[in-house]
Amino acid sequence: MAPADPADPVAPALAPAPAPGSLDALLRPRTVAVVGASRTRGTIGAELFHNLLVHGFAGAVYPVNPGARVVQAVRAYPTVCDVPEPVDLAVIVVPAARVLAVVDDCVAAKVGAILVISAGFAETGAEGRALQDAVLARVRGAGIRMVGPNCLGLLNADPEVALDATFAPTWPPHGGVAFSSQSGAVGLAILDYARELGIGVHHFVSIGNKADVSGNDLISYWGADDAVKVILLYLESFGNPTRFMQIAGDVSRRKPIVAVKSGRTAAGARAASSHTGSLAGSEVAVDALIAQTGVIRTDTIEELFDAAMLLANQPVPRGHRVAILTNAGGPGIMATDACESRGLVLPELGAATVAALREFLPAEASVKNPVDMIASATPAAYERALPLLLADDAVDAVLVLFVPPVGTLAADVAAAIRRGGAGAAKPVLTCFMGMHGVPAALSSLREGRFPSYAFPEAAAIALARVARYGQWLARGVGTRPALAVDPARARAAIAGHRGWLPPEAVREVLAAYGVAAAASVTAADVDAAVAAARAVGYPVAIKLASATITHKSDVGGVVLDVDDDDRVRAAWAGMGDALDGLGRRAEMDGVVVQPMIPRGVETFVGATRGAGFPPLIGFGTGGTAVELWKDVVFRLHPLTDLDAAEMLDGIRGRALLDGFRGAPAADRAALVDALLRIDRLVGDVPEIVELDLNPLVARPPGGGVIVVDARIRVEA
Amino acid sequence: MAPADPADPVAPALAPAPAPGSLDALLRPRTVAVVGASRTRGTIGAELFHNLLVHGFAGAVYPVNPGARVVQAVRAYPTVCDVPEPVDLAVIVVPAARVLAVVDDCVAAKVGAILVISAGFAETGAEGRALQDAVLARVRGAGIRMVGPNCLGLLNADPEVALDATFAPTWPPHGGVAFSSQSGAVGLAILDYARELGIGVHHFVSIGNKADVSGNDLISYWGADDAVKVILLYLESFGNPTRFMQIAGDVSRRKPIVAVKSGRTAAGARAASSHTGSLAGSEVAVDALIAQTGVIRTDTIEELFDAAMLLANQPVPRGHRVAILTNAGGPGIMATDACESRGLVLPELGAATVAALREFLPAEASVKNPVDMIASATPAAYERALPLLLADDAVDAVLVLFVPPVGTLAADVAAAIRRGGAGAAKPVLTCFMGMHGVPAALSSLREGRFPSYAFPEAAAIALARVARYGQWLARGVGTRPALAVDPARARAAIAGHRGWLPPEAVREVLAAYGVAAAASVTAADVDAAVAAARAVGYPVAIKLASATITHKSDVGGVVLDVDDDDRVRAAWAGMGDALDGLGRRAEMDGVVVQPMIPRGVETFVGATRGAGFPPLIGFGTGGTAVELWKDVVFRLHPLTDLDAAEMLDGIRGRALLDGFRGAPAADRAALVDALLRIDRLVGDVPEIVELDLNPLVARPPGGGVIVVDARIRVEA
Repeated sequence: MAPADPADPVAPALAPAPAPGSLDALLRPRTVAVVGASRTRGTIGAELFHNLLVHGFAGAVYPVNPGARVVQAVRAYPTVCDVPEPVDLAVIVVPAARVLAVVDDCVAAKVGAILVISAGFAETGAEGRALQDAVLARVRGAGIRMVGPNCLGLLNADPEVALDATFAPTWPPHGGVAFSSQSGAVGLAILDYARELGIGVHHFVSIGNKADVSGNDLISYWGADDAVKVILLYLESFGNPTRFMQIAGDVSRRKPIVAVKSGRTAAGARAASSHTGSLAGSEVAVDALIAQTGVIRTDTIEELFDAAMLLANQPVPRGHRVAILTNAGGPGIMATDACESRGLVLPELGAATVAALREFLPAEASVKNPVDMIASATPAAYERALPLLLADDAVDAVLVLFVPPVGTLAADVAAAIRRGGAGAAKPVLTCFMGMHGVPAALSSLREGRFPSYAFPEAAAIALARVARYGQWLARGVGTRPALAVDPARARAAIAGHRGWLPPEAVREVLAAYGVAAAASVTAADVDAAVAAARAVGYPVAIKLASATITHKSDVGGVVLDVDDDDRVRAAWAGMGDALDGLGRRAEMDGVVVQPMIPRGVETFVGATRGAGFPPLIGFGTGGTAVELWKDVVFRLHPLTDLDAAEMLDGIRGRALLDGFRGAPAADRAALVDALLRIDRLVGDVPEIVELDLNPLVARPPGGGVIVVDARIRVEA
Repeated sequence: MAPADPADPVAPALAPAPAPGSLDALLRPRTVAVVGASRTRGTIGAELFHNLLVHGFAGAVYPVNPGARVVQAVRAYPTVCDVPEPVDLAVIVVPAARVLAVVDDCVAAKVGAILVISAGFAETGAEGRALQDAVLARVRGAGIRMVGPNCLGLLNADPEVALDATFAPTWPPHGGVAFSSQSGAVGLAILDYARELGIGVHHFVSIGNKADVSGNDLISYWGADDAVKVILLYLESFGNPTRFMQIAGDVSRRKPIVAVKSGRTAAGARAASSHTGSLAGSEVAVDALIAQTGVIRTDTIEELFDAAMLLANQPVPRGHRVAILTNAGGPGIMATDACESRGLVLPELGAATVAALREFLPAEASVKNPVDMIASATPAAYERALPLLLADDAVDAVLVLFVPPVGTLAADVAAAIRRGGAGAAKPVLTCFMGMHGVPAALSSLREGRFPSYAFPEAAAIALARVARYGQWLARGVGTRPALAVDPARARAAIAGHRGWLPPEAVREVLAAYGVAAAASVTAADVDAAVAAARAVGYPVAIKLASATITHKSDVGGVVLDVDDDDRVRAAWAGMGDALDGLGRRAEMDGVVVQPMIPRGVETFVGATRGAGFPPLIGFGTGGTAVELWKDVVFRLHPLTDLDAAEMLDGIRGRALLDGFRGAPAADRAALVDALLRIDRLVGDVPEIVELDLNPLVARPPGGGVIVVDARIRVEA
């Protein structure tokens, strides 16, 4: 392809000049300069330039290379400033040490955007990071957006643009998928896999070190682009989780986002001493972030594409009920297992459906779900059965399985499924058993409306994930109800404190946010303890007071049902003896005396603040067993009422909340209210880095909740 | 291929005549007759006969068809009796209604074995089952083994035999894998997939309705065949789980068995009222069966082959420590995640390994595990690094990743890996990122020694499963120690009883097996209760006695720490009032008075007998929360000491056994002993169909265990 002539009729078909600072200059440029374009095939600079030339890019491409007059048959220029027309996108493929000078040229030439392929920046250490910071300062100062450094490049497969600014050997088919990858190597595999599966890509961006343009920027950009039907992300880290939460949460309401998050085990978990801290690794925060934003998370790249294939071609199902249509029993059983083990259900079919199936299927066929039409099933049978299942009100999605028996043509069945499923408002997935059973028909199905999988499990997993997204969409956003809280009072209570707050300050902070705590009197000596017990009223609970011992029951520091003065004295003496035995007597500051709390369900509410993430709020079964069972569900601040209600439903021990084995149920409304108040507290008072209410006792419905023990840690 | 001439030099290369009743007549026949062989291509009878002709079968094949003189150019005979030489294998492909008559012919002709492809038997209902039973009676009476009916057929890909008695279009490459499939349709997909992946198959048998030859028969046969390196099973049900446990447990010690068990959710779970019953669905029994036999269970067919590819080509690793070698960071992170989340660990490499890697890798490379040689890595670097990792004592297996950057040939890297990994006693797995990145090199790797996967997760999952098998092999079989038990005494105690045993009988049965139970006196009225409490000694526990109310604490039927006569009377009255309130006063038979038990760890031991399976033994955390947390591990009778110890380690709440948060640890030896005694009891006394010890309190080490509450149900 020759450089574009301004008079060439192709040029006017392009969009107008990209707006300054928008990502259009990166993804819809009219003019591209490649600094470091090379004549030596096999080098990155040559392959990238070659890709720009051969895939039908509608604009002009200029090689910039001071050592060559022509590169790959195109007239070259010594610097980007020498290019004879304004450059929208400058691609930089020179060694790291020369990048800053080239960026200066680009600023001088007023390029629209910069893509830095070159490696040798922050990924290599402090020196590289300094260089990257210098580059970033230059482009930020000039208001120019930059992708990279250290990346594979980007592409726009829209035939009107046909921009391949990558050095990958693969050019994917065009379609509705936009993909951002934090790893160039994974990006290479992704492009290859997309072409293999026939998945149509709209944009692909390898974001590299994401010095400037981040995944968040791209999600936001793609959210507004109607040509993008599905957004796929390969993530290794979150630069700004709070912004991701806002942007992804918003865009997910309009179009699905599917993500693989890698680096789960590499992230260094903060060594924290409290319950919440030890339960909440950064992976927990990532899980919460993804759950709350409606992002569909998959475990592998293959599952990412399995979900994308469904989302790009079929409607999102309204529920979890799936009908299975098959011509063989074994695969039907495999599919049933896979569906049910992933949270999908196989409903009974309606009587009308059963009767209609019975009309044309042989007596040996099973017209229960899964519907097994047996090996003699013809393409016509598929074409007739599929719309019956789709029309059944009990069915939200249909999974069609086909095993090619002797004499039946898979291509005919594929065509029959296409006709039978045409125009349905419910998703249809297909599985042609085996890898290469019907390649041509599979491929035509894939390019058309119906996704196809080699084995039923992959279809079931994809459908289950998409159904959960459908549920998230249907759930709505919830509200953050008005709460009477007093941030100033809470701040006053913590003023001057660092580390774990003393009990009085904890009670004051909770009171400021309307969270009721059991009465509690701290006594520094045994006589004061007796006086406190009389004041509180027998029977009382006596607990060790210590700034350093956090797990009191581990050291004999909790005595319950103390019902007279002598027993108060005995409890005091017993705690002292126990600590003497441990050589920790000096850590006893006294005791805390509380009334015995009425019976209820012991729950746990916690909050912790991790690096970069919004505060993490936890709810679970409480008491001393919280570390044993680790039955805690986490969400990120800010919570809505729906988030809080979901947390209650999300714990394994939720039967306790409903009244387990004859015990009274818990006051769910009061638990939700308490969660929202704690959420508000940690949002309002950023000095609070860690908070545990354990147990928070939930009384029967209408009875409210009461904090029996609480800890709060503050930092400057 | 023409029918074999007795003088043909190929014939003598075959094994001698198959022994009567052995499976050799099925899988190594010298002469095959196809009853129902057809001239009409596309029919099952034609395709199967065609397959026998075209894949180089060393013996003679005769079509049997009364309506044709020649079938596919081979001289046909009207009945199997007319075939001019003894028939080792008769394949029957006629409609179900004619099968019995053909079987009679086969018996008359003294064929060695029968393969019934025809459908229309037990899978269609009672009439078909009767027909199948009639066929079975005929072949059993004649001492002839039969595969089928209702199957895809069988094949032996050994080039010396080259028998394809299936109607599948696929002929797999030869290798060390033997495969049994309970579904013909899945079998079709399996053969296709095996050819696609280049996995070498030795035997494949579609067992259909397994009227005679079962999966167990095949495992036993393949266990003795040195050409079989790996046994693969696609299972939908277990015909004889007890026999499977013996055979598979034995064969697994010699060669790996990998299984997909389908039909997980379809199996009707017995509706049982007790703890064990409600926890132990049949899937739990299947899990236990597979865990105890060392069978490697996978979730999908794809994972089955991923594991088989590793097992067929590489040694079983001695441990869980894996080193990762990569030329790109992202895939390295993906692999690390996948390994660690599946129970593999990435050890620190030895100082010598690190130093040796440092010698030739660039400064930007990471010589920590994962070893990232960065994109510039040459084939020579792979060849040099791989043996260093394999030689490191901290490493049990190596996973090699490769992303093709510009200018590097994947085939060269593949060859380098092959040389670098040659002769290692540790497994090497490879992942060439992307689906079709390097097809030729991948394929040569696959046929050779090194399995290759498209994404790191699949490799990690396969390696984790195989490492667990290695652990099972290393663990040994354990022993069943001699126990002083008295079966006659236990039988006497249950004589005449049906349903739940009365408390005295329960205590007697447990005493006969040396399981200590708390003293316990049943009192039918309140005065008897007071007398019992005095006899037992205050403080006591008072529990409702009722033949019908099984969960006593749910109805206020447990009062603890009762310390004088008045409180005994109050407890009696309170229980009566509570039952009055429920309208169940009539169900109160009295109370059971027990001494208060010293503190300890509350555990649960249960046993239940399910249809067809050996008794299922459960161990878990005890008390009222057993249904809430469902923290129970199951194994099948008979248990060894190692099984019992593994059960203790397998519960989620195992920290309780080690002394949780300052509490004393549990007497593990006594728990193991109690499990073995209960296991012996249910083995010796088959009338016991259900048994719960809950709680079984474990005192500190050396203190033993004591049953506080127990229930036993007996049936005729």
